Amino acid sequence: MEDLIKKIREFADERDWEQFHSPKNLSMALAGEVGEILEHFQWLTEAESRSLDDKTLKKVKEEIGDVQIYLARLADQLGFSPLQAAWEKLEQNKKKYPTSKSKGSAKKYTEFE
Amino acid sequence: MEDLIKKIREFADERDWEQFHSPKNLSMALAGEVGEILEHFQWLTEAESRSLDDKTLKKVKEEIGDVQIYLARLADQLGFSPLQAAWEKLEQNKKKYPTSKSKGSAKKYTEFE
Amino acid sequence: MEDLIKKIREFADERDWEQFHSPKNLSMALAGEVGEILEHFQWLTEAESRSLDDKTLKKVKEEIGDVQIYLARLADQLGFSPLQAAWEKLEQNKKKYPTSKSKGSAKKYTEFE
Amino acid sequence: MEDLIKKIREFADERDWEQFHSPKNLSMALAGEVGEILEHFQWLTEAESRSLDDKTLKKVKEEIGDVQIYLARLADQLGFSPLQAAWEKLEQNKKKYPTSKSKGSAKKYTEFE
Repeated sequence: MEDLIKKIREFADERDWEQFHSPKNLSMALAGEVGEILEHFQWLTEAESRSLDDKTLKKVKEEIGDVQIYLARLADQLGFSPLQAAWEKLEQNKKKYPTSKSKGSAKKYTEFE
Repeated sequence: MEDLIKKIREFADERDWEQFHSPKNLSMALAGEVGEILEHFQWLTEAESRSLDDKTLKKVKEEIGDVQIYLARLADQLGFSPLQAAWEKLEQNKKKYPTSKSKGSAKKYTEFE
Repeated sequence: MEDLIKKIREFADERDWEQFHSPKNLSMALAGEVGEILEHFQWLTEAESRSLDDKTLKKVKEEIGDVQIYLARLADQLGFSPLQAAWEKLEQNKKKYPTSKSKGSAKKYTEFE
Repeated sequence: MEDLIKKIREFADERDWEQFHSPKNLSMALAGEVGEILEHFQWLTEAESRSLDDKTLKKVKEEIGDVQIYLARLADQLGFSPLQAAWEKLEQNKKKYPTSKSKGSAKKYTEFE
Protein backbone atom coordinates (compact mmCIF):
# COMPACT_ATOMS: atom_id res chain seq x y z
CA MET A 1 0.00 0.00 0.00
CA GLU A 2 2.83 2.40 0.81
CA ASP A 3 4.35 1.86 -2.61
CA LEU A 4 0.98 2.40 -4.24
CA ILE A 5 0.44 5.64 -2.36
CA LYS A 6 3.88 6.92 -3.38
CA LYS A 7 3.25 6.01 -7.00
CA ILE A 8 -0.09 7.84 -6.99
CA ARG A 9 1.60 10.92 -5.51
CA GLU A 10 4.20 10.87 -8.28
CA PHE A 11 1.52 10.31 -10.90
CA ALA A 12 -0.52 13.28 -9.66
CA ASP A 13 2.50 15.54 -9.14
CA GLU A 14 3.82 14.95 -12.64
CA ARG A 15 0.46 16.05 -13.99
CA ASP A 16 -0.04 19.01 -11.63
CA TRP A 17 -3.23 17.50 -10.27
CA GLU A 18 -2.64 18.37 -6.61
CA GLN A 19 -4.80 21.47 -7.11
CA PHE A 20 -7.81 19.28 -8.04
CA HIS A 21 -7.23 16.64 -5.39
CA SER A 22 -8.93 18.17 -2.39
CA PRO A 23 -10.53 15.56 -0.10
CA LYS A 24 -13.93 16.94 -1.13
CA ASN A 25 -13.26 16.34 -4.82
CA LEU A 26 -11.65 12.97 -4.22
CA SER A 27 -14.66 11.79 -2.23
CA MET A 28 -16.81 12.62 -5.27
CA ALA A 29 -14.48 10.79 -7.64
CA LEU A 30 -14.53 7.80 -5.28
CA ALA A 31 -18.33 7.78 -5.29
CA GLY A 32 -18.44 8.09 -9.07
CA GLU A 33 -16.27 5.00 -9.44
CA VAL A 34 -18.32 3.03 -6.94
CA GLY A 35 -21.39 3.94 -9.00
CA GLU A 36 -19.76 2.23 -11.95
CA ILE A 37 -19.32 -0.95 -9.93
CA LEU A 38 -23.01 -0.84 -8.99
CA GLU A 39 -23.99 -0.57 -12.65
CA HIS A 40 -22.34 -3.91 -13.34
CA PHE A 41 -24.32 -5.65 -10.60
CA GLN A 42 -27.68 -3.87 -10.63
CA TRP A 43 -29.66 -6.29 -12.80
CA LEU A 44 -27.84 -9.46 -11.77
CA THR A 45 -29.13 -11.85 -9.15
CA GLU A 46 -26.88 -12.42 -6.15
CA ALA A 47 -25.99 -15.84 -7.54
CA GLU A 48 -25.05 -14.33 -10.90
CA SER A 49 -22.87 -11.75 -9.14
CA ARG A 50 -20.91 -14.65 -7.61
CA SER A 51 -20.02 -16.12 -11.00
CA LEU A 52 -19.30 -13.30 -13.42
CA ASP A 53 -18.27 -14.02 -16.98
CA ASP A 54 -14.66 -13.16 -17.84
CA LYS A 55 -15.48 -9.92 -19.64
CA THR A 56 -17.55 -8.49 -16.80
CA LEU A 57 -15.01 -9.67 -14.23
CA LYS A 58 -12.26 -7.83 -16.09
CA LYS A 59 -14.27 -4.62 -16.10
CA VAL A 60 -15.27 -4.89 -12.46
CA LYS A 61 -11.62 -5.46 -11.57
CA GLU A 62 -10.72 -2.23 -13.35
CA GLU A 63 -13.40 -0.31 -11.46
CA ILE A 64 -12.20 -1.79 -8.18
CA GLY A 65 -8.72 -0.67 -9.12
CA ASP A 66 -10.02 2.87 -9.63
CA VAL A 67 -11.83 2.83 -6.30
CA GLN A 68 -8.67 1.61 -4.54
CA ILE A 69 -6.60 4.34 -6.18
CA TYR A 70 -8.97 7.14 -5.17
CA LEU A 71 -9.41 5.69 -1.68
CA ALA A 72 -5.64 5.56 -1.18
CA ARG A 73 -5.27 9.08 -2.53
CA LEU A 74 -8.07 10.43 -0.33
CA ALA A 75 -6.62 8.85 2.81
CA ASP A 76 -3.14 10.07 1.88
CA GLN A 77 -4.40 13.64 1.46
CA LEU A 78 -5.85 13.36 4.97
CA GLY A 79 -2.60 12.03 6.39
CA PHE A 80 -3.07 8.32 6.90
CA SER A 81 -3.14 4.95 5.13
CA PRO A 82 -6.46 3.31 4.27
CA LEU A 83 -5.04 -0.01 5.47
CA GLN A 84 -4.30 1.45 8.87
CA ALA A 85 -7.85 2.84 8.98
CA ALA A 86 -9.24 -0.58 8.07
CA TRP A 87 -7.30 -2.35 10.82
CA GLU A 88 -8.47 0.13 13.43
CA LYS A 89 -12.06 -0.23 12.28
CA LEU A 90 -11.87 -4.03 12.31
CA GLU A 91 -10.69 -3.86 15.90
CA GLN A 92 -13.73 -1.74 16.81
CA ASN A 93 -16.07 -4.10 14.97
CA LYS A 94 -14.86 -7.09 16.94
CA LYS A 95 -16.25 -5.49 20.06
CA LYS A 96 -19.39 -4.27 18.34
CA TYR A 97 -20.36 -7.59 16.78
CA PRO A 98 -19.51 -10.38 19.21
CA THR A 99 -19.62 -13.79 17.53
CA SER A 100 -22.21 -15.09 19.97
CA LYS A 101 -24.79 -12.48 18.99
CA SER A 102 -24.05 -11.99 15.32
CA LYS A 103 -24.11 -15.55 14.05
CA GLY A 104 -26.01 -15.86 10.78
CA SER A 105 -28.09 -12.80 11.48
CA ALA A 106 -28.62 -10.13 8.89
CA LYS A 107 -30.81 -8.08 11.14
CA LYS A 108 -28.70 -6.14 13.51
CA TYR A 109 -25.28 -7.58 13.24
CA THR A 110 -24.49 -8.08 9.60
CA GLU A 111 -22.57 -4.96 8.99
CA PHE A 112 -18.93 -4.30 9.51
CA GLU A 113 -19.56 -0.67 10.23
CA MET B 1 -3.46 -6.21 2.46
CA GLU B 2 -3.21 -10.01 2.45
CA ASP B 3 -3.37 -10.09 6.22
CA LEU B 4 -6.36 -7.75 6.20
CA ILE B 5 -8.20 -9.93 3.69
CA LYS B 6 -7.55 -13.04 5.76
CA LYS B 7 -8.75 -11.31 8.90
CA ILE B 8 -11.96 -10.18 7.18
CA ARG B 9 -12.57 -13.74 5.98
CA GLU B 10 -12.20 -15.03 9.51
CA PHE B 11 -14.42 -12.28 10.84
CA ALA B 12 -17.17 -13.09 8.35
CA ASP B 13 -16.85 -16.86 8.71
CA GLU B 14 -17.11 -16.76 12.48
CA ARG B 15 -20.39 -14.88 12.09
CA ASP B 16 -21.78 -16.99 9.21
CA TRP B 17 -21.97 -13.93 6.97
CA GLU B 18 -20.73 -15.61 3.80
CA GLN B 19 -24.39 -16.06 2.77
CA PHE B 20 -24.92 -12.26 2.79
CA HIS B 21 -21.62 -11.37 1.16
CA SER B 22 -22.45 -11.76 -2.51
CA PRO B 23 -20.56 -9.29 -4.71
CA LYS B 24 -23.90 -7.61 -5.45
CA ASN B 25 -24.63 -6.99 -1.77
CA LEU B 26 -21.05 -5.96 -1.00
CA SER B 27 -21.12 -3.38 -3.80
CA MET B 28 -24.18 -1.84 -2.15
CA ALA B 29 -22.53 -1.82 1.27
CA LEU B 30 -19.47 -0.21 -0.29
CA ALA B 31 -21.63 2.52 -1.85
CA GLY B 32 -23.47 3.09 1.41
CA GLU B 33 -20.19 3.71 3.23
CA VAL B 34 -18.92 6.04 0.52
CA GLY B 35 -22.17 7.97 0.91
CA GLU B 36 -21.25 8.54 4.55
CA ILE B 37 -17.90 10.01 3.51
CA LEU B 38 -19.69 12.39 1.13
CA GLU B 39 -21.95 13.58 3.92
CA HIS B 40 -18.92 14.81 5.85
CA PHE B 41 -17.69 16.87 2.90
CA GLN B 42 -20.88 18.06 1.20
CA TRP B 43 -21.17 21.52 2.78
CA LEU B 44 -17.46 22.17 3.21
CA THR B 45 -15.43 24.21 0.77
CA GLU B 46 -12.51 22.45 -0.86
CA ALA B 47 -10.16 24.39 1.39
CA GLU B 48 -12.07 23.33 4.49
CA SER B 49 -11.92 19.72 3.36
CA ARG B 50 -8.14 20.00 3.33
CA SER B 51 -7.97 21.00 6.99
CA LEU B 52 -10.54 19.03 8.93
CA ASP B 53 -10.92 19.45 12.67
CA ASP B 54 -9.83 16.46 14.75
CA LYS B 55 -13.33 15.20 15.42
CA THR B 56 -14.36 15.16 11.77
CA LEU B 57 -11.03 13.67 10.73
CA LYS B 58 -11.53 10.81 13.19
CA LYS B 59 -14.97 10.07 11.79
CA VAL B 60 -13.84 10.28 8.17
CA LYS B 61 -10.98 7.90 8.99
CA GLU B 62 -13.50 5.41 10.35
CA GLU B 63 -15.62 5.65 7.19
CA ILE B 64 -12.53 5.20 5.05
CA GLY B 65 -11.72 2.12 7.13
CA ASP B 66 -15.18 0.74 6.37
CA VAL B 67 -14.81 1.44 2.67
CA GLN B 68 -11.42 -0.31 2.62
CA ILE B 69 -12.87 -3.33 4.43
CA TYR B 70 -15.78 -3.72 2.02
CA LEU B 71 -13.56 -3.09 -0.98
CA ALA B 72 -11.11 -5.76 0.14
CA ARG B 73 -13.96 -8.17 0.84
CA LEU B 74 -15.60 -7.50 -2.53
CA ALA B 75 -12.35 -8.04 -4.43
CA ASP B 76 -11.62 -11.19 -2.40
CA GLN B 77 -15.04 -12.65 -3.22
CA LEU B 78 -14.23 -12.06 -6.88
CA GLY B 79 -10.84 -13.75 -6.56
CA PHE B 80 -8.27 -10.97 -6.51
CA SER B 81 -6.65 -8.33 -4.34
CA PRO B 82 -7.73 -4.68 -4.64
CA LEU B 83 -4.07 -3.66 -4.51
CA GLN B 84 -3.26 -5.81 -7.51
CA ALA B 85 -6.23 -4.26 -9.33
CA ALA B 86 -4.98 -0.78 -8.44
CA TRP B 87 -1.47 -1.46 -9.76
CA GLU B 88 -2.82 -2.81 -13.04
CA LYS B 89 -5.10 0.21 -13.42
CA LEU B 90 -2.28 2.64 -12.67
CA GLU B 91 -0.25 1.02 -15.42
CA GLN B 92 -3.11 1.55 -17.89
CA ASN B 93 -3.53 5.15 -16.77
CA LYS B 94 0.10 5.96 -17.49
CA LYS B 95 -0.56 5.28 -21.12
CA LYS B 96 -3.94 6.99 -21.12
CA TYR B 97 -2.78 10.23 -19.52
CA PRO B 98 0.67 11.06 -20.84
CA THR B 99 2.34 13.78 -18.75
CA SER B 100 2.77 16.01 -21.74
CA LYS B 101 -0.93 16.28 -22.45
CA SER B 102 -2.37 16.09 -18.95
CA LYS B 103 -0.41 18.77 -17.17
CA GLY B 104 -2.59 20.95 -14.99
CA SER B 105 -5.66 20.21 -17.04
CA ALA B 106 -8.93 19.27 -15.44
CA LYS B 107 -10.68 19.02 -18.74
CA LYS B 108 -9.86 15.75 -20.35
CA TYR B 109 -6.99 14.35 -18.41
CA THR B 110 -7.71 14.82 -14.76
CA GLU B 111 -9.14 11.45 -14.03
CA PHE B 112 -7.34 8.30 -13.10
CA GLU B 113 -9.99 6.13 -14.68
CA MET C 1 -43.52 19.59 -8.63
CA GLU C 2 -43.62 23.35 -9.24
CA ASP C 3 -45.15 23.91 -5.81
CA LEU C 4 -42.51 21.69 -4.23
CA ILE C 5 -39.69 23.56 -5.94
CA LYS C 6 -41.09 26.90 -4.75
CA LYS C 7 -41.44 25.63 -1.22
CA ILE C 8 -37.85 24.37 -1.20
CA ARG C 9 -36.67 27.77 -2.47
CA GLU C 10 -38.52 29.50 0.38
CA PHE C 11 -37.19 26.99 2.87
CA ALA C 12 -33.60 27.55 1.75
CA ASP C 13 -33.94 31.33 1.45
CA GLU C 14 -35.35 31.71 4.95
CA ARG C 15 -32.30 29.90 6.27
CA ASP C 16 -29.73 31.64 4.06
CA TRP C 17 -28.68 28.35 2.54
CA GLU C 18 -28.33 29.57 -1.05
CA GLN C 19 -24.60 30.01 -0.41
CA PHE C 20 -24.21 26.27 0.32
CA HIS C 21 -26.49 25.07 -2.46
CA SER C 22 -24.13 25.01 -5.42
CA PRO C 23 -24.93 22.22 -7.88
CA LYS C 24 -21.66 20.57 -6.86
CA ASN C 25 -22.65 20.45 -3.20
CA LEU C 26 -26.22 19.42 -3.95
CA SER C 27 -25.02 16.51 -6.08
CA MET C 28 -23.04 15.30 -3.06
CA ALA C 29 -26.02 15.66 -0.74
CA LEU C 30 -28.13 13.76 -3.27
CA ALA C 31 -25.59 10.93 -3.35
CA GLY C 32 -25.38 10.83 0.44
CA GLU C 33 -29.14 10.35 0.69
CA VAL C 34 -29.16 7.67 -1.99
CA GLY C 35 -26.49 5.88 0.04
CA GLU C 36 -28.92 5.77 2.95
CA ILE C 37 -31.51 4.09 0.74
CA LEU C 38 -28.94 1.47 -0.28
CA GLU C 39 -28.17 0.73 3.36
CA HIS C 40 -31.78 -0.35 3.90
CA PHE C 41 -31.66 -2.81 1.01
CA GLN C 42 -28.08 -4.11 1.05
CA TRP C 43 -28.61 -7.32 3.01
CA LEU C 44 -32.15 -8.03 1.86
CA THR C 45 -32.97 -10.44 -0.94
CA GLU C 46 -34.82 -8.98 -3.90
CA ALA C 47 -37.99 -10.68 -2.70
CA GLU C 48 -37.59 -9.17 0.78
CA SER C 49 -37.10 -5.73 -0.76
CA ARG C 50 -40.52 -6.13 -2.43
CA SER C 51 -42.30 -6.66 0.89
CA LEU C 52 -40.77 -4.37 3.49
CA ASP C 53 -42.08 -4.30 7.03
CA ASP C 54 -43.90 -1.10 8.03
CA LYS C 55 -41.01 0.34 10.00
CA THR C 56 -38.47 -0.06 7.20
CA LEU C 57 -40.99 1.18 4.62
CA LYS C 58 -41.51 4.35 6.65
CA LYS C 59 -37.78 5.01 6.82
CA VAL C 60 -37.22 4.30 3.14
CA LYS C 61 -40.07 6.67 2.31
CA GLU C 62 -38.33 9.40 4.30
CA GLU C 63 -35.05 8.81 2.46
CA ILE C 64 -36.87 8.90 -0.87
CA GLY C 65 -38.41 12.18 0.23
CA ASP C 66 -34.92 13.55 0.90
CA VAL C 67 -33.66 12.38 -2.47
CA GLN C 68 -36.63 14.00 -4.22
CA ILE C 69 -36.03 17.27 -2.36
CA TYR C 70 -32.35 17.43 -3.27
CA LEU C 71 -33.03 16.35 -6.85
CA ALA C 72 -35.65 19.09 -7.28
CA ARG C 73 -33.33 21.64 -5.71
CA LEU C 74 -30.40 20.59 -7.90
CA ALA C 75 -32.46 20.79 -11.08
CA ASP C 76 -33.91 24.14 -10.00
CA GLN C 77 -30.44 25.56 -9.41
CA LEU C 78 -29.56 24.51 -12.95
CA GLY C 79 -32.70 26.12 -14.37
CA PHE C 80 -35.11 23.31 -15.11
CA SER C 81 -37.60 20.90 -13.54
CA PRO C 82 -36.61 17.27 -12.86
CA LEU C 83 -40.00 16.19 -14.22
CA GLN C 84 -39.32 17.90 -17.50
CA ALA C 85 -35.90 16.22 -17.62
CA ALA C 86 -37.53 12.84 -16.95
CA TRP C 87 -40.08 13.25 -19.75
CA GLU C 88 -37.38 14.19 -22.24
CA LYS C 89 -35.26 11.22 -21.19
CA LEU C 90 -38.20 8.84 -21.44
CA GLU C 91 -38.76 10.01 -25.00
CA GLN C 92 -35.13 9.25 -25.85
CA ASN C 93 -35.35 5.83 -24.22
CA LYS C 94 -38.32 4.84 -26.34
CA LYS C 95 -36.10 5.04 -29.38
CA LYS C 96 -33.13 3.44 -27.66
CA TYR C 97 -34.98 0.43 -26.34
CA PRO C 98 -37.55 -0.68 -28.91
CA THR C 99 -40.03 -3.15 -27.45
CA SER C 100 -39.17 -5.78 -30.03
CA LYS C 101 -35.54 -6.00 -28.95
CA SER C 102 -35.80 -5.35 -25.25
CA LYS C 103 -38.42 -7.84 -24.19
CA GLY C 104 -37.48 -9.67 -21.01
CA SER C 105 -33.81 -9.09 -21.55
CA ALA C 106 -31.55 -7.86 -18.80
CA LYS C 107 -28.49 -8.00 -20.99
CA LYS C 108 -28.39 -4.99 -23.19
CA TYR C 109 -31.78 -3.43 -22.95
CA THR C 110 -32.81 -3.39 -19.33
CA GLU C 111 -31.75 0.07 -18.46
CA PHE C 112 -33.68 3.26 -18.85
CA GLU C 113 -30.54 5.23 -19.37
CA MET D 1 -45.74 13.04 -11.53
CA GLU D 2 -48.71 10.67 -11.74
CA ASP D 3 -48.55 10.70 -15.51
CA LEU D 4 -44.83 10.05 -15.42
CA ILE D 5 -45.27 7.10 -13.09
CA LYS D 6 -47.95 5.61 -15.34
CA LYS D 7 -45.77 6.05 -18.39
CA ILE D 8 -42.83 4.35 -16.70
CA ARG D 9 -45.08 1.44 -15.71
CA GLU D 10 -46.20 1.05 -19.33
CA PHE D 11 -42.63 1.33 -20.54
CA ALA D 12 -41.44 -1.39 -18.17
CA ASP D 13 -44.45 -3.66 -18.74
CA GLU D 14 -44.08 -3.57 -22.51
CA ARG D 15 -40.51 -4.76 -22.09
CA ASP D 16 -41.20 -7.36 -19.38
CA TRP D 17 -38.88 -5.58 -16.97
CA GLU D 18 -41.04 -5.98 -13.85
CA GLN D 19 -38.94 -9.04 -12.96
CA PHE D 20 -35.79 -6.90 -12.76
CA HIS D 21 -37.38 -3.95 -11.00
CA SER D 22 -37.22 -5.04 -7.38
CA PRO D 23 -36.72 -2.11 -5.00
CA LYS D 24 -33.25 -3.50 -4.24
CA ASN D 25 -32.22 -3.41 -7.90
CA LEU D 26 -33.82 -0.02 -8.51
CA SER D 27 -31.95 1.49 -5.57
CA MET D 28 -28.72 0.34 -7.20
CA ALA D 29 -29.71 1.79 -10.58
CA LEU D 30 -30.61 5.04 -8.84
CA ALA D 31 -27.19 5.17 -7.18
CA GLY D 32 -25.43 4.38 -10.45
CA GLU D 33 -27.13 7.33 -12.14
CA VAL D 34 -26.33 9.67 -9.26
CA GLY D 35 -22.71 8.58 -9.62
CA GLU D 36 -22.80 9.85 -13.19
CA ILE D 37 -24.00 13.26 -12.00
CA LEU D 38 -21.10 13.38 -9.52
CA GLU D 39 -18.63 12.67 -12.31
CA HIS D 40 -19.69 15.85 -14.08
CA PHE D 41 -19.08 17.97 -10.99
CA GLN D 42 -16.10 16.32 -9.29
CA TRP D 43 -13.32 18.49 -10.69
CA LEU D 44 -15.29 21.71 -10.98
CA THR D 45 -15.21 24.44 -8.39
CA GLU D 46 -18.52 25.33 -6.78
CA ALA D 47 -18.61 28.51 -8.86
CA GLU D 48 -18.03 26.56 -12.06
CA SER D 49 -20.83 24.17 -11.13
CA ARG D 50 -23.17 27.17 -10.98
CA SER D 51 -22.44 28.16 -14.59
CA LEU D 52 -22.11 25.06 -16.70
CA ASP D 53 -21.44 25.27 -20.41
CA ASP D 54 -24.34 24.19 -22.64
CA LYS D 55 -22.90 20.80 -23.46
CA THR D 56 -22.34 19.80 -19.86
CA LEU D 57 -25.71 21.21 -18.82
CA LYS D 58 -27.42 19.07 -21.45
CA LYS D 59 -25.69 15.94 -20.17
CA VAL D 60 -26.41 16.71 -16.53
CA LYS D 61 -30.06 17.29 -17.41
CA GLU D 62 -30.17 13.83 -18.97
CA GLU D 63 -28.65 12.25 -15.87
CA ILE D 64 -31.14 14.10 -13.67
CA GLY D 65 -33.89 12.76 -15.91
CA ASP D 66 -32.60 9.23 -15.32
CA VAL D 67 -32.44 9.76 -11.56
CA GLN D 68 -36.02 11.09 -11.55
CA ILE D 69 -37.23 8.11 -13.57
CA TYR D 70 -35.62 5.55 -11.26
CA LEU D 71 -36.72 7.44 -8.16
CA ALA D 72 -40.33 7.52 -9.39
CA ARG D 73 -40.18 3.84 -10.30
CA LEU D 74 -38.67 2.88 -6.94
CA ALA D 75 -41.30 4.82 -4.99
CA ASP D 76 -44.06 3.37 -7.18
CA GLN D 77 -42.86 -0.18 -6.54
CA LEU D 78 -43.07 0.58 -2.82
CA GLY D 79 -46.58 1.98 -3.16
CA PHE D 80 -46.26 5.75 -2.98
CA SER D 81 -45.33 8.86 -4.95
CA PRO D 82 -41.91 10.47 -4.46
CA LEU D 83 -43.63 13.88 -4.44
CA GLN D 84 -45.82 12.87 -1.55
CA ALA D 85 -42.73 11.58 0.28
CA ALA D 86 -40.99 14.90 -0.37
CA TRP D 87 -43.87 16.97 1.01
CA GLU D 88 -44.04 14.88 4.16
CA LYS D 89 -40.30 15.20 4.66
CA LEU D 90 -40.37 18.95 4.12
CA GLU D 91 -43.00 19.21 6.84
CA GLN D 92 -40.74 17.30 9.24
CA ASN D 93 -37.76 19.46 8.32
CA LYS D 94 -39.61 22.65 9.16
CA LYS D 95 -39.76 21.50 12.77
CA LYS D 96 -36.23 20.13 12.75
CA TYR D 97 -34.57 23.24 11.36
CA PRO D 98 -36.30 26.28 12.81
CA THR D 99 -35.38 29.44 10.93
CA SER D 100 -34.08 31.09 14.06
CA LYS D 101 -31.42 28.48 14.67
CA SER D 102 -30.50 27.51 11.13
CA LYS D 103 -29.78 30.84 9.57
CA GLY D 104 -26.66 30.81 7.44
CA SER D 105 -25.17 27.94 9.37
CA ALA D 106 -23.63 24.98 7.63
CA LYS D 107 -22.68 23.32 10.86
CA LYS D 108 -25.68 21.64 12.30
CA TYR D 109 -28.62 22.94 10.39
CA THR D 110 -27.73 22.93 6.75
CA GLU D 111 -29.24 19.67 5.76
CA PHE D 112 -32.77 18.97 4.70
CA GLU D 113 -32.64 15.46 6.07
